[in-house]
Amino acid sequence: MPASQKPPVVLTMGDPAGIGPEIVVKAFRERPDLLRELVVLGDLPTLHRALRITAPESGASGLMMAQIDTLADLRVAPPGCIAAVQACTLDQPVAWGHVGAQAGRVAADCIRFAAHAALRHEARAVVTAPIHKESLAAAGVVHPGHTELLQALAAEHSGVSAVAMPVRMMLSSPGLSTVLVSIHVSLRQALDAVTTAQVLQTIEITHAHFQRRCQAPARIAVAGLNPHSGEGGLFGREEIEVIAPAVARARLAGIDASGPHAPDTVFMRARQGDFDVVVAMYHDQGLIPVKLLGLEHGVNTTLGLPFVRTSPDHGTAFDLAGTGRASAASLLAAIDAAMEATGQATF
Amino acid sequence: MPASQKPPVVLTMGDPAGIGPEIVVKAFRERPDLLRELVVLGDLPTLHRALRITAPESGASGLMMAQIDTLADLRVAPPGCIAAVQACTLDQPVAWGHVGAQAGRVAADCIRFAAHAALRHEARAVVTAPIHKESLAAAGVVHPGHTELLQALAAEHSGVSAVAMPVRMMLSSPGLSTVLVSIHVSLRQALDAVTTAQVLQTIEITHAHFQRRCQAPARIAVAGLNPHSGEGGLFGREEIEVIAPAVARARLAGIDASGPHAPDTVFMRARQGDFDVVVAMYHDQGLIPVKLLGLEHGVNTTLGLPFVRTSPDHGTAFDLAGTGRASAASLLAAIDAAMEATGQATF
Repeated sequence: MPASQKPPVVLTMGDPAGIGPEIVVKAFRERPDLLRELVVLGDLPTLHRALRITAPESGASGLMMAQIDTLADLRVAPPGCIAAVQACTLDQPVAWGHVGAQAGRVAADCIRFAAHAALRHEARAVVTAPIHKESLAAAGVVHPGHTELLQALAAEHSGVSAVAMPVRMMLSSPGLSTVLVSIHVSLRQALDAVTTAQVLQTIEITHAHFQRRCQAPARIAVAGLNPHSGEGGLFGREEIEVIAPAVARARLAGIDASGPHAPDTVFMRARQGDFDVVVAMYHDQGLIPVKLLGLEHGVNTTLGLPFVRTSPDHGTAFDLAGTGRASAASLLAAIDAAMEATGQATF
Repeated sequence: MPASQKPPVVLTMGDPAGIGPEIVVKAFRERPDLLRELVVLGDLPTLHRALRITAPESGASGLMMAQIDTLADLRVAPPGCIAAVQACTLDQPVAWGHVGAQAGRVAADCIRFAAHAALRHEARAVVTAPIHKESLAAAGVVHPGHTELLQALAAEHSGVSAVAMPVRMMLSSPGLSTVLVSIHVSLRQALDAVTTAQVLQTIEITHAHFQRRCQAPARIAVAGLNPHSGEGGLFGREEIEVIAPAVARARLAGIDASGPHAPDTVFMRARQGDFDVVVAMYHDQGLIPVKLLGLEHGVNTTLGLPFVRTSPDHGTAFDLAGTGRASAASLLAAIDAAMEATGQATF
């Protein structure tokens, strides 16, 4: 397919009560070049509201919304407009900063639209603005977040069970990337998810991602679970019984994995250049260091899906929603990561 | 007591198989002003060996060891010499880089000597070089690390049980301090240690420390336990049932505590100046961000003891031991923190 026919990147608006719609609009205000590359999936009145609250004080911002019916219509959208598809139904914009079933429902509808478009190759990548997990749950969505919902949709599309399409979340800041064994479960449940099979699968998915995207094997550091990696079994035996066997099996398969490394120093070592990526045993083990190094530029990438999907690494920031003050920096980093992985359309 | 009669700061040599002895010696090489302030507690032949391997290549380092019998003899020690007390018995220096009962035993003997000296006011503060927990255990010491051993010795001295002398570990890097609810236990056991009583006690000890040392109340951020602080109970209920009640009780007592805050952003916020210190629910939650920000300048302070005790925030680095290449920067930061808390002797 020539570059001129590359399908667009789709960008979901996220939870309409959060900062999603306004950072989506701000991303285009800051980078008008993106108008020809992305289609926004959302609720048009909600996006219009975001346009208003992010308008420069002079009022002469010039940026407008253009509703299109299909993604392919991006190429005929009027210039200087944000092309958007009404990907959900909402009677009127929801109040800012509140958990709600309605907000969760429309956020999920946009994600479903995006996934189906990518799975049908009508979109070349998916970038998602933040959603609120309580609202998602209130809407009756059984998947706790984006990653699990996208996995289920991709598995369904391929006619396999979700188990047969394992995915992992990778978080990246400049200088540090981490892939998580588990994500949106309690820490107590996360401990139970640290099995040799899960750790090995995380290492394999990480390896495959770097092979595909970077055409080079990654130096993968595997973190321990306990303080000081259990200090030889004194504070927990998961390193000896669970994690080390997974690392050994990965190495036998030719993967450049090492560990388990002490959790409190492995991220520092990765940042210093000893490793390309750290496999973290639970959500906060990986996210605390990545966010500390730069929330502004953090990107979340889902590994293992049949399409490229990235997102900013922050949440809905209900306290900021509606003020127009939220930064689009992390969303722009996510958009750039998705475009870097799939090439520009330039039609 | 006039400044001229202030007792010295004592500095333990740490595990003789690790980098402790050599960073102790290097600290004096880099900062000869410390020779009049500190007495080293260790094994003289081991310290002599450290002196040799850290000598400048020219050989003319000038620095020597002077064995003294009591801490008070520091004032009559020959100038330009490291004053050291033979605080343990060892037939010959142990091999570098190996776990061993003998190494653990002498490391513990030096810690006991230091604690007793501080409890009898013969030392004004204790700074400890790193020990190896496996060696400590091999020596039959029931306490997993410095903090627990010092707590037991202080409680015994005061005639109370260890429970009646609660202590906590504080780790500080420039711009970020964290106090830990639990330390050297498996992550699974650490979860069980997150009780309202333990969290409240940690907040209280933190508050008391800042009141005493800084003559000002600290803005204490209390971290959650689960991803996104449980996201309203979706991924764990400890925030609702355990941590929030502890914060509420602390606030009722007039303490400036807030939270539970999402673990993956609270350290970033503290670093940006929103809080003075973060109460972390488990070892790695606090240590990953502090170490990421600067292992070179990290200081470990034990809060709750009847004396000042600091240490570097790194381990024995067996792989470096004997090379003379280990950095004394974190140890020097710990010495400076102890001196800042107790004033200089300048006799």
